[in-house]
Amino acid sequence: MRLADLGERSGVPLATVKYYLREGLLPPGQRVNATQAEYDESHLRRLRLVRAMIQVGRLPVATVREVLAHVDDESLGTSIRLGAALWALPHSAGGPEKETGPAAEPGQADPARAAADALVGELLAELGWDAAREIGGLSPAHRALVTALATLHRLGYEFTAADLLPYARTMEQAAEHDLDRMEQLPDIRARIEYAVAGAVLFEPVLLNLRRIAQAEQSSRRYGI
Amino acid sequence: MRLADLGERSGVPLATVKYYLREGLLPPGQRVNATQAEYDESHLRRLRLVRAMIQVGRLPVATVREVLAHVDDESLGTSIRLGAALWALPHSAGGPEKETGPAAEPGQADPARAAADALVGELLAELGWDAAREIGGLSPAHRALVTALATLHRLGYEFTAADLLPYARTMEQAAEHDLDRMEQLPDIRARIEYAVAGAVLFEPVLLNLRRIAQAEQSSRRYGI
Repeated sequence: MRLADLGERSGVPLATVKYYLREGLLPPGQRVNATQAEYDESHLRRLRLVRAMIQVGRLPVATVREVLAHVDDESLGTSIRLGAALWALPHSAGGPEKETGPAAEPGQADPARAAADALVGELLAELGWDAAREIGGLSPAHRALVTALATLHRLGYEFTAADLLPYARTMEQAAEHDLDRMEQLPDIRARIEYAVAGAVLFEPVLLNLRRIAQAEQSSRRYGI
Repeated sequence: MRLADLGERSGVPLATVKYYLREGLLPPGQRVNATQAEYDESHLRRLRLVRAMIQVGRLPVATVREVLAHVDDESLGTSIRLGAALWALPHSAGGPEKETGPAAEPGQADPARAAADALVGELLAELGWDAAREIGGLSPAHRALVTALATLHRLGYEFTAADLLPYARTMEQAAEHDLDRMEQLPDIRARIEYAVAGAVLFEPVLLNLRRIAQAEQSSRRYGI
């Protein structure tokens, strides 16, 4: 298809498509003559992904470029390629990675963070998530989880590994569905693009399903 | 305990505690003489909740006040009181509620939103979440879910009710754990405060557990 068709089929304004091309977020089409190029389904898929990251995920162009570099890196094994693309995305911890204020003197140990770190280690051991244990704090999701639990701890909300275990098991099921769905796609690149889009776009779906489920459970237990 | 002890036990600076008192976010203590008041465990719990909403949830003071008014409204049934407090919290939909740009002419129907609305209706029917169906679009979580799915639809990511069903079931389990944990607390007010804190503070825990579970699943399926 021509550039104008790509814009029309994706619903992305033509000026924006051209900007993504210039910024290298969208690979160039196949030249057919001096002034025209041909684009295919892979361009359409990539365009939608870029649009999702920028418009919905509000990611800066530099981050989008970094994520896509991992998506396109065929020298990596599938798991590392997928991991690298997802790691380049922002991770919300609901708070700063380091405590600020008087408790955060340089060189001073942060007891809330140390406790949260031990808690995550214990949880992963009980879950038998051996790859996740091995990767440990190298993973931004691991670090963000420790930060979130340290914040909860500082605010006086205490959790044990046993408290967190059922939540981790439900998220394990969600991750299995994620990968099952991903594996329906034809090739590795499309699968990794799908995983990135899912990380950016699907989190509000999950969180709002949880809130609706809470309201449903509450109505069943206590009446409307 | 005295005001200074309340600050120390909560880790909240005294000037901040005084500000919360002035703003009515923390109820006044029991007067013991002209210059001193006595505070108890319920003040400590409330102070932590206010701190969590403002510091972690980054909620404006007006929103915190509205949420707390519902928490404290003893005229309401438990389910409505809980629901009202949670409804006053912000809901992330990962995008604007209405489509902007040329497709959003006033008076024009939004087909993506209509499709998403029908999809959520079908999903809730299949789940048998009858209270949630009855409440419907009155619930901000319901509206935010419709918005998130409409955004996915516009970007070319299509879901059916069957696709969403396993995710909704996992979130149903998470909500059951939420309410089981909440019911371990002694009184209604403490339970509702716990639910509000959970909505603000626990979402990053869930989302990062999902990312870690994805990495674990990916390593198991494709090797590290």
